[in-house]
Amino acid sequence: MVFPETFFAERTSLLKASEIRQLLKWVAEGDIISFGGGMPSPATFPRQQIIEIITEGINEHGDKLLQYGTTQGLKELRSELRNFMEWKGINVSSIDNILILSGSQQGLDMFGKVFIDEGDVVLMELPTYLAAINAFKPYNPEFVGLKMDDDGIIISALERILKKLESKHKKIKFLYTVPTCQNPAGVTLSMERRKRLLELASEYDFLIIEDDPYSLILYEPIEVAPLKSMDAEGRVVHLSTFSKILSPGLRLGWIVADDKLIEKFVLAKQVMDLCTSPLLQYIAYGALKRKVIQENLTKIRALYKTKRDKMLEALETYFPDGCKWTRPIGGLFIFVWVPERVNTKELIKDCSKKYKVVYVPGQSFFVDGSGTNTMRLNFSYPTMEEIEEGIKRLGQAIKERL
Amino acid sequence: MVFPETFFAERTSLLKASEIRQLLKWVAEGDIISFGGGMPSPATFPRQQIIEIITEGINEHGDKLLQYGTTQGLKELRSELRNFMEWKGINVSSIDNILILSGSQQGLDMFGKVFIDEGDVVLMELPTYLAAINAFKPYNPEFVGLKMDDDGIIISALERILKKLESKHKKIKFLYTVPTCQNPAGVTLSMERRKRLLELASEYDFLIIEDDPYSLILYEPIEVAPLKSMDAEGRVVHLSTFSKILSPGLRLGWIVADDKLIEKFVLAKQVMDLCTSPLLQYIAYGALKRKVIQENLTKIRALYKTKRDKMLEALETYFPDGCKWTRPIGGLFIFVWVPERVNTKELIKDCSKKYKVVYVPGQSFFVDGSGTNTMRLNFSYPTMEEIEEGIKRLGQAIKERL
Repeated sequence: MVFPETFFAERTSLLKASEIRQLLKWVAEGDIISFGGGMPSPATFPRQQIIEIITEGINEHGDKLLQYGTTQGLKELRSELRNFMEWKGINVSSIDNILILSGSQQGLDMFGKVFIDEGDVVLMELPTYLAAINAFKPYNPEFVGLKMDDDGIIISALERILKKLESKHKKIKFLYTVPTCQNPAGVTLSMERRKRLLELASEYDFLIIEDDPYSLILYEPIEVAPLKSMDAEGRVVHLSTFSKILSPGLRLGWIVADDKLIEKFVLAKQVMDLCTSPLLQYIAYGALKRKVIQENLTKIRALYKTKRDKMLEALETYFPDGCKWTRPIGGLFIFVWVPERVNTKELIKDCSKKYKVVYVPGQSFFVDGSGTNTMRLNFSYPTMEEIEEGIKRLGQAIKERL
Repeated sequence: MVFPETFFAERTSLLKASEIRQLLKWVAEGDIISFGGGMPSPATFPRQQIIEIITEGINEHGDKLLQYGTTQGLKELRSELRNFMEWKGINVSSIDNILILSGSQQGLDMFGKVFIDEGDVVLMELPTYLAAINAFKPYNPEFVGLKMDDDGIIISALERILKKLESKHKKIKFLYTVPTCQNPAGVTLSMERRKRLLELASEYDFLIIEDDPYSLILYEPIEVAPLKSMDAEGRVVHLSTFSKILSPGLRLGWIVADDKLIEKFVLAKQVMDLCTSPLLQYIAYGALKRKVIQENLTKIRALYKTKRDKMLEALETYFPDGCKWTRPIGGLFIFVWVPERVNTKELIKDCSKKYKVVYVPGQSFFVDGSGTNTMRLNFSYPTMEEIEEGIKRLGQAIKERL
């Protein structure tokens, strides 16, 4: 059978392969140092504790954990998450305000499904998380990019955009943000700007989706409260994941939101995958209950801080003049601007073939197509030696291009 | 914040709560005998073997199984599935023709995402699997229902429909079928009709989605080959699941299809959930490799055959004249027609409150809104005593209505 492109739904042409996933494929194939991906270090996985929790779970509750579960998620886990959220400063009135996801990516697809009609405005940071762009794109929104500086979204620029959209009678569905240790830019939205952002959301009546995978992985003492903790009107949807604090192989995330929204999300999840594996949910429940996650965080922070510092030092040593980069207070990434005449999508060809080192070219993180001279570097997965050697090679590749 | 219906995407109004999931909720609440749901008996879960496989997996491959995996799925599992498919008579040319899913429901949502533009024709059996209707509905197809008899889809009726659609220049995207032990009707498409169906698909150029959760759970020796095994043109997409042969709590399914289709499905899955848990995939891999599944099937068949026979016997004893039902050769369900003047959506109110027994009213399985006097009964989950007692109560409820 021949399958011409017209055989598929129109939106299929909008489904895009993630460059990161492609990079991961390359790396699997050869002796290449990778700063692509956003993988945690396997050294942080509490293997023996996971085995213990699963064994206990199946022995004591096998009938339930190996059976279909409810769409909203295991009550025991939602109850532990409620405490965990409180520890992060978010007051959750009931476990019914929590929905368990099969990874936070499912949440992104769900937001598209539940909110976006063709042409709806979706506000995105410049740059922003690539997998969010790719998840929303098939629903065909109009992306509007928001400029950032070292303190995150520039509020005055946002206000100008909001006024302009209002004058055109455009409906804004939501603003998507990673306010703390932003992926890929590594910046954190200041407390003052958080307050103003919430005021603007109220004034212009839009929803904020707060994607928060990194706020527990901080390397410096700072004071930031999650947007959800400051949300008096129920207009913040808080999305998070166990991927960076426990294990990404469990594919577990969660949403905290207003009742009315959770109700719609549950309907959407029912058609998306019926429910998330109760067995995997029990692992997260056990890891919270036994404080495995809470204690593991200290280890994760220490390990990644050392790696971040190593990478910053190597950048200083090996990168040529005219490059600049972020100094993230947490998270897994450093974002780099090389001189404007270097296109990082071109550069990566030399890097992967000749220099055997890869990163993610930054352009695909920008909904307005800018950022041709940027790259995202991950420091959580490579070893200390790989960081030193890989940054050295990257520096050489850039110098060669200049 | 107020969320008027207009705040959500148009398709959100098409997201429907599954009546089955609602029923499961009721049952969780009280002392009610349930023939709703489609849950396997927990007695069939190989608990200790699952613990062994996980322990081995995490100890020996923890770095990989607790990390992000590839979107298409664990190679080891796809390789075992290739052998497993061969055992079922399906020749899979490469493991690249297999995609692992987070449950077969994800496949249904994926087919909607990849294939259905608003108004595209989707052919569905009358009745058909409710979760498939609910998964496709948000993509807004035009459902066209296909009449069945004891041998499955009536081919002459299908031909008339195809001709009519052709004369109207309507594009058929796919025909969705559960050809073996159909859910909910329990019927099996005859071999002769399978051949004709494939010929018609070729003549009218449409895809067939073969949903096949039950073909290994047969209670009588019959000869049926999967449609995929007879597919010379690559127009059959074969969908299956580990839910009924291992455990639904693992949320694992798979697709076998043509390269070009798999490529699109992988793009869709990437935005849907990045990848399926490698840890769960390893359980299925281990269970196939160690022949846990193959050996467990004998036990499952014996157990469910006894339950099916018990239910058929109880129906004979307790149901009034004017009722008829299917005698399924496999699967988990018996489908019942009560006298036409009884509406089973009304009847269930008496049943749940007064008689403490529930089933799934059949109407929601019919895309044309018919079937008001039908019900689906599950026999895999209830005990032998519950089957006897529950059917007795149901019989009384029907008699009272008549």
